[in-house]
Amino acid sequence: MIRPFYFRDETLYILDQRVLPRKERWIACSTAEDVAHAIRTLAVRGAPAIGIAAAYGLVLEAAGGRSSVERASRILLASRPTAVNLPWAVKRCMETAARSGERELKERLTKEADAIWAEEIASNEAIASLGAGLFEQGRSFSVLTHCNAGSLATGGMGTALGVIRRLHEQGRLQCVYMDETRPLLQGARITAYELKADGIPCTLITDSMAGWLMRLNRVHAVIVGADRIAANHDAANKVGSYSLAVLSHAHGIPFYIAAPRSTFDAETPTGDDIPIEERGPEEVLTVQGSVLAPRVNVFNPAFDVVPHGLITAFITESGIIRPG
Amino acid sequence: MIRPFYFRDETLYILDQRVLPRKERWIACSTAEDVAHAIRTLAVRGAPAIGIAAAYGLVLEAAGGRSSVERASRILLASRPTAVNLPWAVKRCMETAARSGERELKERLTKEADAIWAEEIASNEAIASLGAGLFEQGRSFSVLTHCNAGSLATGGMGTALGVIRRLHEQGRLQCVYMDETRPLLQGARITAYELKADGIPCTLITDSMAGWLMRLNRVHAVIVGADRIAANHDAANKVGSYSLAVLSHAHGIPFYIAAPRSTFDAETPTGDDIPIEERGPEEVLTVQGSVLAPRVNVFNPAFDVVPHGLITAFITESGIIRPG
Repeated sequence: MIRPFYFRDETLYILDQRVLPRKERWIACSTAEDVAHAIRTLAVRGAPAIGIAAAYGLVLEAAGGRSSVERASRILLASRPTAVNLPWAVKRCMETAARSGERELKERLTKEADAIWAEEIASNEAIASLGAGLFEQGRSFSVLTHCNAGSLATGGMGTALGVIRRLHEQGRLQCVYMDETRPLLQGARITAYELKADGIPCTLITDSMAGWLMRLNRVHAVIVGADRIAANHDAANKVGSYSLAVLSHAHGIPFYIAAPRSTFDAETPTGDDIPIEERGPEEVLTVQGSVLAPRVNVFNPAFDVVPHGLITAFITESGIIRPG
Repeated sequence: MIRPFYFRDETLYILDQRVLPRKERWIACSTAEDVAHAIRTLAVRGAPAIGIAAAYGLVLEAAGGRSSVERASRILLASRPTAVNLPWAVKRCMETAARSGERELKERLTKEADAIWAEEIASNEAIASLGAGLFEQGRSFSVLTHCNAGSLATGGMGTALGVIRRLHEQGRLQCVYMDETRPLLQGARITAYELKADGIPCTLITDSMAGWLMRLNRVHAVIVGADRIAANHDAANKVGSYSLAVLSHAHGIPFYIAAPRSTFDAETPTGDDIPIEERGPEEVLTVQGSVLAPRVNVFNPAFDVVPHGLITAFITESGIIRPG
């Protein structure tokens, strides 16, 4: 199981997810700005993973003292707006920094980043087992997922893909259908890469085929991750998740969101209060540098919001939550 | 307004829709096999357009007499399975052939192909006006379309795009949202190209964004074409249409299908009886020769079926039909 980054010799090495599966290229980050750039450009992505990367981004500035770390925290916080794990991790590390003397700052921040990562790994494990437990015993299932909520998004075994991996370990997985997830194709590029590497039976579809697959009774459940879950349980996730939730509802198929508690944000009252990142037109007009369309207007929200009424359950490390 | 083909000097020239908008490349077809190859490989596509192209494909074999034309009809019929306009046009031309002496065969087949094309052009005009009439007067609208049901799919002003063009002529079109329509991107490549060329305000989205756009109240109606409409009014169209119909229904947005009467097939009782073409995995695994995903299983139906209960109305040249 490949991990999105590792920390060694004062450097955070980030696997460049933009060029997978064609290349396994590692980016060496020695400053918080390097990490922010990797987050902003999606070299590292996935709500839990960007939280962990940001924590190590602060470690990289610890030698410069608390003022450097404070400056770094502002750069990291501004790198992407939607996922709450990023401000959650930064806030947690900055509280640690506030409690630390200048001499012990680096050691304490390193411990905190290590702890955040270790907790995500442990929470993925718990999510996997609790999620698999939602599926009736003695049967096998086909599951649809969207984008990538796997090891590359979390640093652990994954949230949505964690549940899927556990079903597979238990011999209860028929097939994972993966939406390719335009515009950036995290499903086609990253989820397919992860699942193929681990020998998990998987089938790729375009995003437009998900409804038809449900109509053909080929999907028993949809499981996705989340980038921010509001206090009222509306959840933001990769664009396309909302359509999948409506389609699941129309077909009587459970729609599950697997996410660690760090993705729940009590400070955001409802889905309407979640900032939705809108990205540039090139992501839609091109693929891997190849021009698809003439230059026309593009609408490119990176996320959408699933209202809580369409979510069957949240699978967290501390239990199953039924929204509403 | 660009047309998908023209017939001159015993040759059918087909605009290669696979390389639009990057190149305007014309394929010179001098045999029915050339035309069948263009249909099979999607150089020409769109239900009405492939019907017209097939009619000219028969003309190309008329010099060889009725037996050549009969052999050609079998090759053309086998080129694609879902759109009914193809067998409809071939049957109509073969009935003409059966009524013609060998000496007048070529002239009669040419007249029949010309007539089929002229009727599609006229029916597009009627569809455009009747369709625009479905939209309340004194207001303007934003419409979502999928794939390409424009001049390149029909040889005329288009079915779905005909309605949209008429709304624009009437000053009642705010914006057309175009699904990019993976895997072959007819929306991004061809619809965007047509609408941009004609100065019609349009915005491109990925297929996964359509539901979110509806949720944001940015779409007042969905209009698509069709490849075959069964006797019970279930309708096959480009994959993704089914999802759009479910999403439209969930949001209380009308879902219109604009199609000439030649797309209605009394011989096919229900949507379950419509053959759905499944195409190769490369269309999903690659874009314009660039590899997107590792080699995993792919499910790639080219069409899906919208059950009649989800269709608000059919817009035909001879009137509006409410299904059911």
